[in-house]
Amino acid sequence: MSGVLYGVGLGPGDPELMTLKAARLIGAADVVAYPALAGADSFARSIAAAHLKDGALELRLDVPMRVERGPAQAAYDAGAAEIAGVLETGQDVVFLCEGDPLFYGSFMYVQARLVDRFQVEVVPGVNSISASVAAMGSTLVARNEVLTVIPGPLDAEEMRARIAAADAVAIMKVGRHLGKIRAVLDGMGLAANATYVERATLAAEVVLPLAHAPDEAPYFSMILVTKGRDPWI
Amino acid sequence: MSGVLYGVGLGPGDPELMTLKAARLIGAADVVAYPALAGADSFARSIAAAHLKDGALELRLDVPMRVERGPAQAAYDAGAAEIAGVLETGQDVVFLCEGDPLFYGSFMYVQARLVDRFQVEVVPGVNSISASVAAMGSTLVARNEVLTVIPGPLDAEEMRARIAAADAVAIMKVGRHLGKIRAVLDGMGLAANATYVERATLAAEVVLPLAHAPDEAPYFSMILVTKGRDPWI
Repeated sequence: MSGVLYGVGLGPGDPELMTLKAARLIGAADVVAYPALAGADSFARSIAAAHLKDGALELRLDVPMRVERGPAQAAYDAGAAEIAGVLETGQDVVFLCEGDPLFYGSFMYVQARLVDRFQVEVVPGVNSISASVAAMGSTLVARNEVLTVIPGPLDAEEMRARIAAADAVAIMKVGRHLGKIRAVLDGMGLAANATYVERATLAAEVVLPLAHAPDEAPYFSMILVTKGRDPWI
Repeated sequence: MSGVLYGVGLGPGDPELMTLKAARLIGAADVVAYPALAGADSFARSIAAAHLKDGALELRLDVPMRVERGPAQAAYDAGAAEIAGVLETGQDVVFLCEGDPLFYGSFMYVQARLVDRFQVEVVPGVNSISASVAAMGSTLVARNEVLTVIPGPLDAEEMRARIAAADAVAIMKVGRHLGKIRAVLDGMGLAANATYVERATLAAEVVLPLAHAPDEAPYFSMILVTKGRDPWI
């Protein structure tokens, strides 16, 4: 009997926003795996740290961050092979995922390489939109409103069209795209409806009206845009 | 000093998908409040049941389900007044919310009535999209893809336009709109790309290709649609 691969969502960063199921699986795991940007600490591991079992085997996947996709895929090949080696011995592997494993996450690259040969179970986590909206402290979307989630790298023209068609918008992965996003929202007269959220739920969390946002945003930042307001609230 | 109102997300239904923070706050609460459909059990309370403190005061908000909005708003008025009475004595109130409090949730009606007078803290939960995607077991959206979230009651014409513009779609609150949604997806040639998920993470969970979905869907069901697939996975 082969082991089971668990893709476990850890939530947005505050370790207390991990689910009970994630904490249980991590606490019982003899083998965990996690991604890390080459040379840096693993954010996923840092969220899970307090629950790791003493002496657990840790498989670290160093993923290079480049526009070119080949090197990262080679890293997933190598990581998946290492995980497969453990699963074949009958041991389970808990793969630690920031946020929610399958919501703009990289777990799919690991899963895709192993799902034909092994049982894979995904444990959902609190995603970054839920975390950012809680930090903002007011509703993004309700009732019959349409929400569109837009990655920051989208070009300005397409971004404008997507925002125009939605009742509410979450723009993810803001980072170096902040200037472009500001210009799009200004041009649409929506800047006053936009909230900037950086590192939601972490100690360094920042929540500001977009007009007061800093000039430089980290990768883990989001802009939330609402349009109308429900007349009943 | 007034008490604090906590809007606590409980996740999609499996009690183990509650966060550690939710479990801690519920376990320590002398007063909890929750919504219920008039005459029925409260789904929110059922998720939280194992963590409720013995002897905790329970404030139940009976919310009538009607198209007409006045009666529900009157129920929120009454519930908010009752909660305010407790907060004024200095006691905290933990408001139990299915899923994520501010993601298509009703907590906003309670919050809106109290936020000017009391401190309100929102604890995000695993939302129904993350839960349904985990049940489906494959990625809905990744990298620079645009996700659009569409409530089932939207009319067919608008639904078609929103689906056409997105890379991936989550259609919430399917219920009695299943026939219309099927027709829209069939007409767009996307039926084969659609997965039907009912009661994600509960014992009664159902996951099927849309073609094999039942003729009647409950309110807590979702249709997930993907278009292209990342060539790298």
